[in-house]
Amino acid sequence: MKVGVIGGGQLGQMLAQAGTSLGMKFVFLDPAKDACASALGEHVCANYDDQEALQQLAKEVDVVTFEFESVPAETVSFLSDYVPVFPNAESLRIARDRWFEKTLFKSLDIPTPDFANVESQTALENAVIKIGLPAVLKTRTLGYDGKGQKVLKNQSDVTNAFAELGGVPCILEGFVPFSGEVSLIAVRGKNRAIRFYPLVHNEHRQGVLHLSVASEQHPLQATAEAYVTKVLEKLDYVGVLAFEFFEVDEGLKANEIAPRVHNSGHWTIEGAVTSQFENHLRAIAGLPLGATQKYTESAMLNFIGAIPSAERLLSIESCHLHDYSKAFKPGRKVGHVTVCCKTMDELKQKTQAIEALMSH
Amino acid sequence: MKVGVIGGGQLGQMLAQAGTSLGMKFVFLDPAKDACASALGEHVCANYDDQEALQQLAKEVDVVTFEFESVPAETVSFLSDYVPVFPNAESLRIARDRWFEKTLFKSLDIPTPDFANVESQTALENAVIKIGLPAVLKTRTLGYDGKGQKVLKNQSDVTNAFAELGGVPCILEGFVPFSGEVSLIAVRGKNRAIRFYPLVHNEHRQGVLHLSVASEQHPLQATAEAYVTKVLEKLDYVGVLAFEFFEVDEGLKANEIAPRVHNSGHWTIEGAVTSQFENHLRAIAGLPLGATQKYTESAMLNFIGAIPSAERLLSIESCHLHDYSKAFKPGRKVGHVTVCCKTMDELKQKTQAIEALMSH
Repeated sequence: MKVGVIGGGQLGQMLAQAGTSLGMKFVFLDPAKDACASALGEHVCANYDDQEALQQLAKEVDVVTFEFESVPAETVSFLSDYVPVFPNAESLRIARDRWFEKTLFKSLDIPTPDFANVESQTALENAVIKIGLPAVLKTRTLGYDGKGQKVLKNQSDVTNAFAELGGVPCILEGFVPFSGEVSLIAVRGKNRAIRFYPLVHNEHRQGVLHLSVASEQHPLQATAEAYVTKVLEKLDYVGVLAFEFFEVDEGLKANEIAPRVHNSGHWTIEGAVTSQFENHLRAIAGLPLGATQKYTESAMLNFIGAIPSAERLLSIESCHLHDYSKAFKPGRKVGHVTVCCKTMDELKQKTQAIEALMSH
Repeated sequence: MKVGVIGGGQLGQMLAQAGTSLGMKFVFLDPAKDACASALGEHVCANYDDQEALQQLAKEVDVVTFEFESVPAETVSFLSDYVPVFPNAESLRIARDRWFEKTLFKSLDIPTPDFANVESQTALENAVIKIGLPAVLKTRTLGYDGKGQKVLKNQSDVTNAFAELGGVPCILEGFVPFSGEVSLIAVRGKNRAIRFYPLVHNEHRQGVLHLSVASEQHPLQATAEAYVTKVLEKLDYVGVLAFEFFEVDEGLKANEIAPRVHNSGHWTIEGAVTSQFENHLRAIAGLPLGATQKYTESAMLNFIGAIPSAERLLSIESCHLHDYSKAFKPGRKVGHVTVCCKTMDELKQKTQAIEALMSH
């Protein structure tokens, strides 16, 4: 089976590493000449709206998937005319737009922060009256890793906020006093079977994921699974979906979904029986899904901007390095490590040892 | 780091899957146009004695390794003039020739079957007098998977045996009444550190590896480790080495070594903390070696000639498929599965379920 992937970054790279074992070949569409996944397959170097390139891709492959959701809707619908695309166009349409996303959560009775659509400064001011401050103004599309958002603490923050985010359609979200952030990685097959990984605790730094720890029997696992099931079934979703939640006193509040393999699921490569990457590919290929249990306790640490010395990292037992072969650049995700240990205490110690290497 | 690999089959493919995580890129030298590893790196499509191609490879990469040992000695010595080669030329020279190999074992006091060098029919007849029958006549080089050998049960088998194996240099080995076959996968780093995986029980069918089961605390683990250490140190070996033994009443008798990642170590991809592929690459790159413990009980089954339906295989929980993307052909290794389970009983059940799929 030949799989087309829109985007050729590290997610594409890890998909190809997993898919090679399933006998799959890969074609990546990515405008970047140095797209890191390109070493593991063919590389169609073109823009995402290049219809000729899309057609070429569609002709060559059996199925198309995405490694990021900010793909133009036209790209997806164009491709869907020629080749099966998973997840489907509707899932991408919803997931790439915070307003559609939260509207979907609300319609499915999934708790979510208060929110309002904001298409002008006037609309913003009305929304602030309704929702109150503090609140967060976010662009509806194209925001990621804390980009495209602004925290509004008091009235003076509101004054130019709409213009400051570029005057594009936004969503205002009530600030949620959360105690933690968790994500649930789920996968749904063509036969509608669903599997869930254990809930993952996520810690962000400057808006970017820093640390993910797979939880031990989280008390809200079943609650999260019920919410995610609603979304998967509503969208007739096929593939891996990541669902991020805020942990609040009452339980969980839905933050956002990513219709793809997700950074907070990277630990599954070494830490779970079947990785999120393999399960995504199994799903879109119509194969049975793999088991999602943890082997051991697992944590994942992101390397932003640079990777500490491999020599030192690999001296730490059970430290699994993933170097994406990307040029180092401030703020760029260039790699990660997964640490697998028998106990949570040991996991914490090793995680701290790696953090110490990162700060040097 | 860019790694050159002589050979572009499934071992090269699995090296590249592992090495990608370490930020490595791969160049494969293989005369086969459809070399299965070629999807995961550059492919220099040339014969192994093509000096121009070897020079091109040497220029492009930081280090060279091998996925099979039947490489002409000239290839290795030629490459060694331009680029570091691991394992070293001497290790390959020994490992590719059964006479050198067994002579080394003997010189290191490692028990091995009786053996004699056979370069003519007369030499064979003298060797039979010395060693007795039954015995096995094997070509000194290029034999693998039971090819290039002939069992001599009685005098009439001896008559034309030397000519039947092509009149090439051979070795006669006394038949060993063994109760089992085991292999020890070891890895030695540039800093001389050595790590061992658990001994693996191997079952062959028609001379080809069929099943490998990672053992539980094998009573001869320490004995095997001592033997392998002698060889690794004598050869100043860097990389993964597989050492095959016969289990006999008195302990172990050395059969042969393979100076590379080995089929009986494939289970380490899912079953051990660090796979043999990653550890081989860590070794040749001068990085610290990774832990070699088992996560769970693990077994590997080879697919020879064809792979059963992926749909059915993957319905078996904890069954990890490796489809090498090779055309199906009788006798050809086209894939394998690893099964990981908590108990040996469960492992046996699942292994049998997979064997049942294979016979359909």
